[in-house]
Amino acid sequence: MADLLEKIKSWSFNWRTIAQAGGSEDALNLSPDLPVHQCQQVRKQLNACLQSQGGEVSARQRAATLGQAYLELNTEGRKRFLKILAEDFGTDRQAVDQSISNFQNATDEEAKRGFEIELRRNLEPARMTLLRQFNALPQGVKFLVDLRAELMQMAREESSLKIVERDLKDVLISWFDVGFLELRRLTWDSPASVLEKIAEYEAVHSIQSWSDLKNRLARDRRLFAFFHPRMPDEPLIFVEVALVNGMADNVQDLLDENAPLLDPDAADTAIFYSISNAQAGLAGISFGNFLIKKVVASLKKDLPNLKTFATLSPIPGFRKWLDETLAEGDSALLQTSEREALKLASGQKGAKGGLKALLDDGRWVNKPEACEALKAPLMRLAARYLTEAKRKGARPLDPVAHFHLSNGARMERLNWLGDVSQKGMKQSAGMMINYLYKLSDIEKNHEAYRGDGQIIVSSQIKSLKKG
Amino acid sequence: MADLLEKIKSWSFNWRTIAQAGGSEDALNLSPDLPVHQCQQVRKQLNACLQSQGGEVSARQRAATLGQAYLELNTEGRKRFLKILAEDFGTDRQAVDQSISNFQNATDEEAKRGFEIELRRNLEPARMTLLRQFNALPQGVKFLVDLRAELMQMAREESSLKIVERDLKDVLISWFDVGFLELRRLTWDSPASVLEKIAEYEAVHSIQSWSDLKNRLARDRRLFAFFHPRMPDEPLIFVEVALVNGMADNVQDLLDENAPLLDPDAADTAIFYSISNAQAGLAGISFGNFLIKKVVASLKKDLPNLKTFATLSPIPGFRKWLDETLAEGDSALLQTSEREALKLASGQKGAKGGLKALLDDGRWVNKPEACEALKAPLMRLAARYLTEAKRKGARPLDPVAHFHLSNGARMERLNWLGDVSQKGMKQSAGMMINYLYKLSDIEKNHEAYRGDGQIIVSSQIKSLKKG
Amino acid sequence: MADLLEKIKSWSFNWRTIAQAGGSEDALNLSPDLPVHQCQQVRKQLNACLQSQGGEVSARQRAATLGQAYLELNTEGRKRFLKILAEDFGTDRQAVDQSISNFQNATDEEAKRGFEIELRRNLEPARMTLLRQFNALPQGVKFLVDLRAELMQMAREESSLKIVERDLKDVLISWFDVGFLELRRLTWDSPASVLEKIAEYEAVHSIQSWSDLKNRLARDRRLFAFFHPRMPDEPLIFVEVALVNGMADNVQDLLDENAPLLDPDAADTAIFYSISNAQAGLAGISFGNFLIKKVVASLKKDLPNLKTFATLSPIPGFRKWLDETLAEGDSALLQTSEREALKLASGQKGAKGGLKALLDDGRWVNKPEACEALKAPLMRLAARYLTEAKRKGARPLDPVAHFHLSNGARMERLNWLGDVSQKGMKQSAGMMINYLYKLSDIEKNHEAYRGDGQIIVSSQIKSLKKG
Amino acid sequence: MADLLEKIKSWSFNWRTIAQAGGSEDALNLSPDLPVHQCQQVRKQLNACLQSQGGEVSARQRAATLGQAYLELNTEGRKRFLKILAEDFGTDRQAVDQSISNFQNATDEEAKRGFEIELRRNLEPARMTLLRQFNALPQGVKFLVDLRAELMQMAREESSLKIVERDLKDVLISWFDVGFLELRRLTWDSPASVLEKIAEYEAVHSIQSWSDLKNRLARDRRLFAFFHPRMPDEPLIFVEVALVNGMADNVQDLLDENAPLLDPDAADTAIFYSISNAQAGLAGISFGNFLIKKVVASLKKDLPNLKTFATLSPIPGFRKWLDETLAEGDSALLQTSEREALKLASGQKGAKGGLKALLDDGRWVNKPEACEALKAPLMRLAARYLTEAKRKGARPLDPVAHFHLSNGARMERLNWLGDVSQKGMKQSAGMMINYLYKLSDIEKNHEAYRGDGQIIVSSQIKSLKKG
Repeated sequence: MADLLEKIKSWSFNWRTIAQAGGSEDALNLSPDLPVHQCQQVRKQLNACLQSQGGEVSARQRAATLGQAYLELNTEGRKRFLKILAEDFGTDRQAVDQSISNFQNATDEEAKRGFEIELRRNLEPARMTLLRQFNALPQGVKFLVDLRAELMQMAREESSLKIVERDLKDVLISWFDVGFLELRRLTWDSPASVLEKIAEYEAVHSIQSWSDLKNRLARDRRLFAFFHPRMPDEPLIFVEVALVNGMADNVQDLLDENAPLLDPDAADTAIFYSISNAQAGLAGISFGNFLIKKVVASLKKDLPNLKTFATLSPIPGFRKWLDETLAEGDSALLQTSEREALKLASGQKGAKGGLKALLDDGRWVNKPEACEALKAPLMRLAARYLTEAKRKGARPLDPVAHFHLSNGARMERLNWLGDVSQKGMKQSAGMMINYLYKLSDIEKNHEAYRGDGQIIVSSQIKSLKKG
Repeated sequence: MADLLEKIKSWSFNWRTIAQAGGSEDALNLSPDLPVHQCQQVRKQLNACLQSQGGEVSARQRAATLGQAYLELNTEGRKRFLKILAEDFGTDRQAVDQSISNFQNATDEEAKRGFEIELRRNLEPARMTLLRQFNALPQGVKFLVDLRAELMQMAREESSLKIVERDLKDVLISWFDVGFLELRRLTWDSPASVLEKIAEYEAVHSIQSWSDLKNRLARDRRLFAFFHPRMPDEPLIFVEVALVNGMADNVQDLLDENAPLLDPDAADTAIFYSISNAQAGLAGISFGNFLIKKVVASLKKDLPNLKTFATLSPIPGFRKWLDETLAEGDSALLQTSEREALKLASGQKGAKGGLKALLDDGRWVNKPEACEALKAPLMRLAARYLTEAKRKGARPLDPVAHFHLSNGARMERLNWLGDVSQKGMKQSAGMMINYLYKLSDIEKNHEAYRGDGQIIVSSQIKSLKKG
Repeated sequence: MADLLEKIKSWSFNWRTIAQAGGSEDALNLSPDLPVHQCQQVRKQLNACLQSQGGEVSARQRAATLGQAYLELNTEGRKRFLKILAEDFGTDRQAVDQSISNFQNATDEEAKRGFEIELRRNLEPARMTLLRQFNALPQGVKFLVDLRAELMQMAREESSLKIVERDLKDVLISWFDVGFLELRRLTWDSPASVLEKIAEYEAVHSIQSWSDLKNRLARDRRLFAFFHPRMPDEPLIFVEVALVNGMADNVQDLLDENAPLLDPDAADTAIFYSISNAQAGLAGISFGNFLIKKVVASLKKDLPNLKTFATLSPIPGFRKWLDETLAEGDSALLQTSEREALKLASGQKGAKGGLKALLDDGRWVNKPEACEALKAPLMRLAARYLTEAKRKGARPLDPVAHFHLSNGARMERLNWLGDVSQKGMKQSAGMMINYLYKLSDIEKNHEAYRGDGQIIVSSQIKSLKKG
Repeated sequence: MADLLEKIKSWSFNWRTIAQAGGSEDALNLSPDLPVHQCQQVRKQLNACLQSQGGEVSARQRAATLGQAYLELNTEGRKRFLKILAEDFGTDRQAVDQSISNFQNATDEEAKRGFEIELRRNLEPARMTLLRQFNALPQGVKFLVDLRAELMQMAREESSLKIVERDLKDVLISWFDVGFLELRRLTWDSPASVLEKIAEYEAVHSIQSWSDLKNRLARDRRLFAFFHPRMPDEPLIFVEVALVNGMADNVQDLLDENAPLLDPDAADTAIFYSISNAQAGLAGISFGNFLIKKVVASLKKDLPNLKTFATLSPIPGFRKWLDETLAEGDSALLQTSEREALKLASGQKGAKGGLKALLDDGRWVNKPEACEALKAPLMRLAARYLTEAKRKGARPLDPVAHFHLSNGARMERLNWLGDVSQKGMKQSAGMMINYLYKLSDIEKNHEAYRGDGQIIVSSQIKSLKKG
């Protein structure tokens, strides 16, 4: 949030200006760690905000001043500040009890409904009002989003802050209704400041340099992001798309800066090869499904020749699951002949040899024999992992699989050596998967998955599973 | 809302497009008056929205389809539609009761807080979720604002709809947080479509023609409006300002299209001569105080020579109050000499003559003697009306006075013959008043008014009151 | 140019600011009629501009000051000013003679070419440099365009100014290269200030009111204009288009504000019903052909269902030609039976009756019999006028016909009672004509017309001609 | 120009589209080296352009097609193409001779003036018309600017192309009138594609990385560029400014990415530390003086606390001049004591030691004694170089000095070790100079310099010179 403070300071026109014009005091000089004797001062200011002392405009100005003071605190100081919110600015318990009693004693339905609203309003703690008032800051919405990220982290150690985080989440859920979001295509003509954030937030295939970034914005690439109107420089979530012919099976090919450009009008397939959430403070407030479908609709409109929409996705949990499963022995996982071949390929005999040895070594990808020996069993095991490994409940262990399946995609094709980067090798033994978004089946697939937990897979994956 | 339907139809890219791409059915053919046998269909669709059938994206699309179907209904049909929302999409009463019980039985504070949130969420009726989903419409926010205007009107006859209106208000309060609003200056270079709305919404001194409008946007005039990012073509509230020398005392002078232009840099005073709310559906969600103060701050920055910020305001309730008071006889209101003079001026003897006769006739403004006779008593009575006539409670009877006083302005000057238009004569016997926004006193004035109901007035008004 | 002065004064940041920062004197106080003793001062300033006294930036500032001083002169003063340009700022005759001599004496081709350039540059009179320097004014290009309009008018009486006008034309030809122009679609969301200019400049079917204007921007209408990047608020030329089904035959129908809207995607025909030049100062610098063809291309792209592109055009010279022709007697124009019928319909006997009487009366359009009697002969005569009446040379007498024919259109259909407005009756006896832009024939038609003066007509017009 | 071809191809809407709509043939398949038998085809197309075959719109389309074909040629082919322009599309010599004769034989002045215009127009070779028609290309202006850059290079070997280059220059001079240019401030929020060009074009202190670039756009930095409205993505010339306190004396300090940020409102000095021309094709068409003065005016307006405007400039020709001068022996340049000290510091005896040895070695900057011994003589010699070394005529040898002096700046301060980069050491022995733009003296300075070649210097430089 250091950047934010910098930005807020450079802002020239805001509520502070307004309030200064009105003669309001401005500074709130707090020590960075907000010593206990200053907490009272903060409490007083917060109360003044709540009571709209000097009028609503002044109250907002006070909130802005408080918000800026918060940004100047250190971690200790911020915790103290937030604890004040947690402890002293909850609901009016007496009013709540009274509303409950009114509600319970009401005899006709209309009165009951009226008291429901009364109760609901009384259940909004004072801190929610205060949190909303921080919207008066020049970058108020970003302030609150970052505040929630901070709260989530702090609440791990300091559980009393959890309540503030949950209240803030409710504020953000309302403000980040997907109807407010704007889909924007980013290109090499977009502001450098925004592109820099894309590079920073990319979470799947990290962006190595500005020329890597430029390549992802080339004529046969698309990058779409959701923006909130009050955070116009901050992507919320973004997706990177390659326009290709046929379903891509290798991400290094897609990222190759020297690959020739394709005429986008000639492409028949759009490959979604990276989706990243950009705002930690919006965790649990999801737009990914909307993004994908809006992008599909936008691409279809602009490039009518596109026939296939699919992802090229990582399988992030595969190796971890495999290692855990192998810890219980590989007898159930491998056929005898496979086990033999793998031992041979690993060059180690006995228990130490075989699958685990090869994977742990990590250099197998450069050894044709090892590749040969690994391919069939790893493909089969990955297919099993994707379709059979579950969390408690029916939900697949693999989070990427869960995301696309619940959006109505189907598992289409497993790609051997689809991502031989260090990360790809470590997470998924170099494999990648295509999820296919077949528009006419999306609703049906979604319902099947949501209802019965049924995972729709292609015949390739079905046969891989069987081995 | 007819315009809205037109607009929505002309939209080319929206959730419908997305859903169509996904194969969703699209039309919802309802008879205009929504006969009872079709209500079941609507209920079913609303339930499908709530349950996110086919995924969230499809649910939004369904909501958009429903919203559009609503716009095609007639008044009868709309009432039936809204009654479904009122009756069948409230809270889950069982869940509410359970949460209340949880809350009441919780022993430690942390649990109690947790159950507060649970209860608050359970008290959000299903219809609030549905209302938010209408945000999926291309002009979703405008749809909901207009829907509330419609609900307020319908609820007068059909009180069961009041609950929907109140729930919708809560949604809009959150979405129209003043932090989201954008202050925009409108000029003759602004879109004709937006200026047309200004002409339509102006509520104080109605705009007669495009040349009248152009004059209000001249070099020595300013027009500022608040906009919501999702209703970029719809002013929410706007204020018209004249840059002048000295505090203006006559609105016809300000509106005179032939008056010479002043160099804005040479002006020392900004006169706010009209403030209008533009959206009936945002009644009770107030931004007027923010607007005035943001405009003051913006003007101060651009035109550092401005020293005085004041309004030139109507006194809308004066004549009505005076007529009612006169009905009880004028003995307490007028001095004997005044009564004589007025009788003489009215040209009628006996009880029929005098103040009331003159006012009812309405032509006195053209008769110097009558003016002479009326000036002193009317100025005194207006000063009394403004400062002494109250509603139940301490609040002044005059709504404009209440608005500016609660913003921290003071009553500065009463202007004889300040508005001799038909409306001005009828409402306030031709008088206008300046409210002065002295920046250094705003907070103090506000607190005095809010706390003790103290009305800050200038010495002119004080002496007028005494007569 | 009064508006321009207003605009320039309100400009806040320009060369003047720059020069003031540099300490330059600013004002040039001239009497409005520029008395002779002040001419010397102007001459001195112009020379200082030419010699870049104080540097080029100061020279530009001086030019801007001079330009502004010019705007403050009255007609007499302006004439004097321009005469100085005409008389004292021509070429350096000595240098010209020297270059001619160099050119004539040069023996090898390369030298000859070099001297051609030298001569060309020496033939640029000093006033062209000065005229270009006026581009330093905030609205410099508009200043020069308006200056040329003024010069054209003045030169009628004062032929010595013609040389300035011609030099200025050469400057403008270079600056208004069609490659610099931007095609913009105007809608009801365009700036009111720009739309106001459209209303003012419309030259074919005058715009009656803002609602008439709004109707011409409705969903099934298009209005395109060319703009110059340095005159972004000033349309240069614009065309109004109606999207309809079938080739429109009546302009009152098109302009009817109450006519139902058509879905533009359902239209099969685009009717260009008005083309107006907006800048008198650009006379003789033509963009009309580019405008029409760019608009056709743009419409085809956006609305692929459009199949036919045609105009609905006036026949402005028909009545004048007819009156002149009739003055020589109608025997060659009318058949005996027609003459009889027309006399009958005119209700007047003898020489006074007949065609001319009916037309002069002007009320025939409301009399069915008269219409009946007039239709055949007028249609025939109009067809003859359009195809046979010529100026000296092969060029058709009708200027609209010449414009569209030289663009490659063909005469498609004559429409009886296509424009029954006063103007339409007066100019063309209520008839209109469609020129058809058939894309595949445009080049061929153009070459036929340009080469042999061949007018391409439809079979309807062919048979009308024959009668 | 490869990029340009890429861009033009990706353009979707242009004259080609228009002409295609009109059925024009489109491709012009030429072999890359344009063999002689294809030249005839090019000639034919060029003639068709000139004669507006098929109408003006078609002619423009032809020109666009030719321009694109040109871009697809190799160097050999392009030379052949341009030679056609040089040889076959000059003036009509007969018409020129006739006009000359008309002009010479004219007896009255008005006729003479008319024939001047006629002659001037006849002296415009056909190729100028053709060159202007290339403006029909989507990036037509950029095409012509790049074409001129190419022509300048080719004309070195192929002098017959010089004529085309000069004609093109005349076209560009008119189109790049400074009144058309737009001053834009670039920030980190500017398009990455534009910033990338800044990095590419920076010619003084090369930009090392995106973080170096970002630093030059920080809160206390400014970067302004001129743009042409038809080349909106291409800076023409740009200047980098540092906002500091006191006149900066060291460029490494300014470029230090880790230096703390200054509040721009607190700065009293604007340092112009880099000015770069970005378009080789605009050589000889200068805007630098306008840029500096517009930027000064803009900065003064935004940051009223700025008092001093100065450059921190390289002295690019110093070392070269010094080496040449030293070649004639150092006796006239150094005092005996200096010579001794320098020999000592160089660690070499005899003729090989001393000033030249130290400079050639280049490591002296790290040796305090050497620095000590070099400082006084180098500062003196630099002062002499700057003020006394001249080209033929009065113009200073140093091009940067000439540029700023002719803009009216004065030589203010020589800075020892102001640029210790490799380039700085090599060009100017690590020294830099401040040119001061004192607004009130600019015109006076300019006139003194232009008239008498007088160089205005500060007392520091005066005393340095004397030693």
